[in-house]
Amino acid sequence: MRIALDAMGGDYAPKNIIEGAALGLKELPEIEKLYLVGDATAIGTELKNLNCQDPRIEIYHASEVITMKESAAKAVRHKKDASICRAVELVKNGSAEAVVSAGHTGAAVAASVLKLRTLKGIERPAVACLLPTESNVFVLIDAGANPDSTPENLIQFAIMGAVFSEHVLGYKNPSVALMSIGEEDMKGNDVTKEAFKLLKASSLNFRGNIEGHDLFEKRSGRLRRFHW
Amino acid sequence: MRIALDAMGGDYAPKNIIEGAALGLKELPEIEKLYLVGDATAIGTELKNLNCQDPRIEIYHASEVITMKESAAKAVRHKKDASICRAVELVKNGSAEAVVSAGHTGAAVAASVLKLRTLKGIERPAVACLLPTESNVFVLIDAGANPDSTPENLIQFAIMGAVFSEHVLGYKNPSVALMSIGEEDMKGNDVTKEAFKLLKASSLNFRGNIEGHDLFEKRSGRLRRFHW
Repeated sequence: MRIALDAMGGDYAPKNIIEGAALGLKELPEIEKLYLVGDATAIGTELKNLNCQDPRIEIYHASEVITMKESAAKAVRHKKDASICRAVELVKNGSAEAVVSAGHTGAAVAASVLKLRTLKGIERPAVACLLPTESNVFVLIDAGANPDSTPENLIQFAIMGAVFSEHVLGYKNPSVALMSIGEEDMKGNDVTKEAFKLLKASSLNFRGNIEGHDLFEKRSGRLRRFHW
Repeated sequence: MRIALDAMGGDYAPKNIIEGAALGLKELPEIEKLYLVGDATAIGTELKNLNCQDPRIEIYHASEVITMKESAAKAVRHKKDASICRAVELVKNGSAEAVVSAGHTGAAVAASVLKLRTLKGIERPAVACLLPTESNVFVLIDAGANPDSTPENLIQFAIMGAVFSEHVLGYKNPSVALMSIGEEDMKGNDVTKEAFKLLKASSLNFRGNIEGHDLFEKRSGRLRRFHW
């Protein structure tokens, strides 16, 4: 796999990001290529400090950084040479297959939408997060890409999460639940109540509302491919 | 203090509610009167089982119960003789000074609004919850009365919370924070971003956005009257 890593994204970037990259390269032979995207001098210094000379690394210079204080959409539009923008472009032009960033989530989402667009029928991207339960893992989606989602957005996220659960994690007929403020069918705010109706009418394996304390319960689904 | 207790509200009502009432009466001499509102026969049986004959108790019969599965507004309108409705009426007619219920939050809120109305300038009621920090307590408001709040609602809740903090808890010039998905000024969804502006323009001691992990931090405010 070929990965573009936003070397400037995160609270202790680029130091901790490069340290993580060096560790990852040691442990993961399946990485064929790792683009370290960001300030070439700073990245070079960190690699030298770590005495890391892995031939799979390629430094890809980007002169700008989007900080946590910036408005995502504005920053992505104005900072053409930001590390996260350049990293996403590496996926767009086929050099890389995935982007990894620990930086501004909104900026990563905005750069991805602007440059890669969403799938047909999907209006907004979502952050999918794998979380452990007592017995296996589940997908929390959306975990932070959208501060305001419509019921239609939530259905599209549910479909993407179910497809991911089935085809990447290997769950058969994965169940979908809606996180709300109560388990009863009519509990929720205007958005989740409408989403409940849409999910119930869909062909998804919908099990209803759940609350936060239900997230980590033991599940019967058998995880075939993924190992935590 | 004279209290109306919804004896039928809660997962293990009336048994656990009556047990709690008996314990409370033993420990709190400031309770002058305790109305146990609900099915008189069931309440009588529980009191007998506990051998509780406290003279401050008055059983106030109500023939109906609002269950967790019901729509709050509808149930309050149709079940005139529900325990929570009768308990609120005891406050309205001056018999009691406060209602306590461990039952359907929405029903307690709906009954209160319908029968007692809100204060002038306050459009919606809010649930205020006292939570401990390392050093004292703080008020979380709204803690569940409204699934959908407008920015204007949030400002009104902030004012009520600040007044409560100052006059009930004894904090001087209590600070107000807005719980959001990031600490930076522009983080949040449409509702919290607008509320941020209104709070900043208000005369409240507004300290900005906070995240969940900030809630329990040590605070400098000195708590004068309240003991946890």
